[in-house]
Amino acid sequence: MRHSLPRRLLAEFLGTFWLVFGGCGSAVISASFPQLGIGFLGVALAFGLTVLTGAYAFGPVSGGHFNPAVTLGVATAGRFSWKDVGPFWIVQLLGATFAAFVLLKIAQGNIDFSLANGFAANGYDEHSPAGYTWQSGLLAEIVLTAFFLLVILGTTEGRAPVAFAPIAIGLALTLIHLVDIPITNASVNPARSTSQALFVGGWALEQLWLFWVAPLVGAVIGGLIHRFALADD
Amino acid sequence: MRHSLPRRLLAEFLGTFWLVFGGCGSAVISASFPQLGIGFLGVALAFGLTVLTGAYAFGPVSGGHFNPAVTLGVATAGRFSWKDVGPFWIVQLLGATFAAFVLLKIAQGNIDFSLANGFAANGYDEHSPAGYTWQSGLLAEIVLTAFFLLVILGTTEGRAPVAFAPIAIGLALTLIHLVDIPITNASVNPARSTSQALFVGGWALEQLWLFWVAPLVGAVIGGLIHRFALADD
Amino acid sequence: MRHSLPRRLLAEFLGTFWLVFGGCGSAVISASFPQLGIGFLGVALAFGLTVLTGAYAFGPVSGGHFNPAVTLGVATAGRFSWKDVGPFWIVQLLGATFAAFVLLKIAQGNIDFSLANGFAANGYDEHSPAGYTWQSGLLAEIVLTAFFLLVILGTTEGRAPVAFAPIAIGLALTLIHLVDIPITNASVNPARSTSQALFVGGWALEQLWLFWVAPLVGAVIGGLIHRFALADD
Amino acid sequence: MRHSLPRRLLAEFLGTFWLVFGGCGSAVISASFPQLGIGFLGVALAFGLTVLTGAYAFGPVSGGHFNPAVTLGVATAGRFSWKDVGPFWIVQLLGATFAAFVLLKIAQGNIDFSLANGFAANGYDEHSPAGYTWQSGLLAEIVLTAFFLLVILGTTEGRAPVAFAPIAIGLALTLIHLVDIPITNASVNPARSTSQALFVGGWALEQLWLFWVAPLVGAVIGGLIHRFALADD
Repeated sequence: MRHSLPRRLLAEFLGTFWLVFGGCGSAVISASFPQLGIGFLGVALAFGLTVLTGAYAFGPVSGGHFNPAVTLGVATAGRFSWKDVGPFWIVQLLGATFAAFVLLKIAQGNIDFSLANGFAANGYDEHSPAGYTWQSGLLAEIVLTAFFLLVILGTTEGRAPVAFAPIAIGLALTLIHLVDIPITNASVNPARSTSQALFVGGWALEQLWLFWVAPLVGAVIGGLIHRFALADD
Repeated sequence: MRHSLPRRLLAEFLGTFWLVFGGCGSAVISASFPQLGIGFLGVALAFGLTVLTGAYAFGPVSGGHFNPAVTLGVATAGRFSWKDVGPFWIVQLLGATFAAFVLLKIAQGNIDFSLANGFAANGYDEHSPAGYTWQSGLLAEIVLTAFFLLVILGTTEGRAPVAFAPIAIGLALTLIHLVDIPITNASVNPARSTSQALFVGGWALEQLWLFWVAPLVGAVIGGLIHRFALADD
Repeated sequence: MRHSLPRRLLAEFLGTFWLVFGGCGSAVISASFPQLGIGFLGVALAFGLTVLTGAYAFGPVSGGHFNPAVTLGVATAGRFSWKDVGPFWIVQLLGATFAAFVLLKIAQGNIDFSLANGFAANGYDEHSPAGYTWQSGLLAEIVLTAFFLLVILGTTEGRAPVAFAPIAIGLALTLIHLVDIPITNASVNPARSTSQALFVGGWALEQLWLFWVAPLVGAVIGGLIHRFALADD
Repeated sequence: MRHSLPRRLLAEFLGTFWLVFGGCGSAVISASFPQLGIGFLGVALAFGLTVLTGAYAFGPVSGGHFNPAVTLGVATAGRFSWKDVGPFWIVQLLGATFAAFVLLKIAQGNIDFSLANGFAANGYDEHSPAGYTWQSGLLAEIVLTAFFLLVILGTTEGRAPVAFAPIAIGLALTLIHLVDIPITNASVNPARSTSQALFVGGWALEQLWLFWVAPLVGAVIGGLIHRFALADD
């Protein structure tokens, strides 16, 4: 039995809220705490755990995408209805944006907080945490999103032990962040990039194009490789 | 078959002892060790692992709440008998308090220990680790407890692979701590807050109201959202 | 079907080797590396992963104790034959000691290595990493070993999803180390303590009594609580 | 049903790419970031997660070796066809090398990058991160690869809960790195060593012999112990 569309959209809204609130929240609030801060390792773990926990909690309802690139890649692989892509993208963006809004309200309760510190927005060149060029960012985001889709598609089809998929998928996102944070602050998710850019404005909006183009291109590549070269017949 | 109430209460007592002893113990004893200390990341992992391990070990007996807010939220969702809420709350508070007492005895074997360093009690304003206001603390605790309940309720109903629930729930608590420690020292659990406040006294008792109000409100919100919008019919 | 005793003893030998080589090895080799070292958090993870991986790999053969206290506690709970306790203890001690020997050979290939730095031996008072008294060490080791047994016994009986037990048990050992390293360097395992003390000698041998007494007492307490108050009928 | 050889080879190519790109990528890009870097602990986690996620995603197609030593060890244990060892080794080397090439392109987008910093190549003596001798490196790589194979072989045969094998195997690789990074930068995988050495050249190529000899010897030892002393009859 399949859930109704409104229920699935609510699950995607909540899951994407959780991804942005938990992942970006850990970065904004906890990464740089003096001495005891969680650093990039903690942020990588947090992003992964948002998806691991969200996929177990909301996945049985909606499939647990929480990411427009994932929705596109799964549709490309022939495993998701094209007509539901639009509604999924909309609620993912709404969930992410609402999460960023709530996170902003909480963060503003700290006297040292400033949006000028980045609010965990994604960027390249002078806005890359370690100063990577946009070409590096583009390549990294494409490759990492393609493999993210390969993990998602490979762990959720019949032959695999699908109950384990949220563990593999969530920890794949952790792994992606362990590589990608210094390059772009790690996106592979246009909703997560958009929500933070909306509040930061300026440079973050100007650089937002990359965090739509690269994840979507990567997701299509991953979806096509899986569909035509790896999928169970 | 269901276990008798005394056996279930013992399991809750032990599980809540484990949560406070392991979670607060890691914070008090190991977080700030020079150079090699585990930091907030280690404390976040410790809290999560108390629940992951406790839920596998004691969950088959009692359901594995270890937290008055969880008990309330699960009852709100219609999945726990209202008449057992009182006994569960009592043994949760007893288990937490006994754990704090044993932890205190151990900690006092270190010459540098002082209750004035906070004993991992929760707080806001000048007692927030990073100086967050009470409004930020309230909002964070409500949102995080609500999602904690959504994860608990979503992973333990029929459609989900319920044997994985302790992994998802435990790691959700880790995630919550990755965001929340700098704000309030992370509660989402009135028993854990009460046990530490009882020994710290003063400001910790004065600020304890927030760590009952916010988790309980969040738990009810999570319980209601799950019951009326997400639950399997 | 049950494996022959020699095969079970080989599995225990290998598993205890793995526990000491991986756990103490990470402490001796990687914990204090400048800037990039893994700290107590990494050591805690390493100890837990030796048991998680060893229990999946060797547990189907021997049950996966790798620890005299675990063997005693499981026997106390009525789930292990008393006549096999002796042989299990002997191979556990042999495996641990052989691991410490190999680790020593490797470590001596580093010019900065010295047994005087402790070789990850357990200790109290001036040999506690943070200067905890022997009373604190005794209490902590008893409480933590008791709960270690409660997790082991609770996750491996019929009602629980037993295939998940190695995850819960391994991560329980991680949690124990997150609390206990600053107190005693974390034992809860007389074999792991003995192997390191044999090579360090002096103070480590003098203090070794505590790391037999406390884990064994804790294991019996955990075994009795489980047997008479929690076990499935 | 078994997949065709080309499909299996593609899965091995992708999995080995993922292992090198994710593992070495985290080391090159994220380990040493000032203040917030992931350190050896993060790199150890990254390597483990490449295998955990890759084994769930690609394992159902190819078995998930991603490592010539694993292929040899599994064949030694009688669980893999000897005639497929050659093709597997070739695609593993190709996948690793292509990953190193893409990683190099990305890394060069950072002005501070230099191959002279090692590019995560493996080494001993003056090229060991902590200055360990080649004898220490050889011994550590043999022991750790042998146990890696014991975990792989033990968790993937009938009696074990095989759906959990990728968790145990991936986290075994994390554990191996927690011990081995300061000694040799951690190999246990000739493909991962070769790919980095090809781009670093010089000393890395001169020292590459050890990272073929030791993992292959260790894998054969692990394969033989499993086959003749532990395997289900």
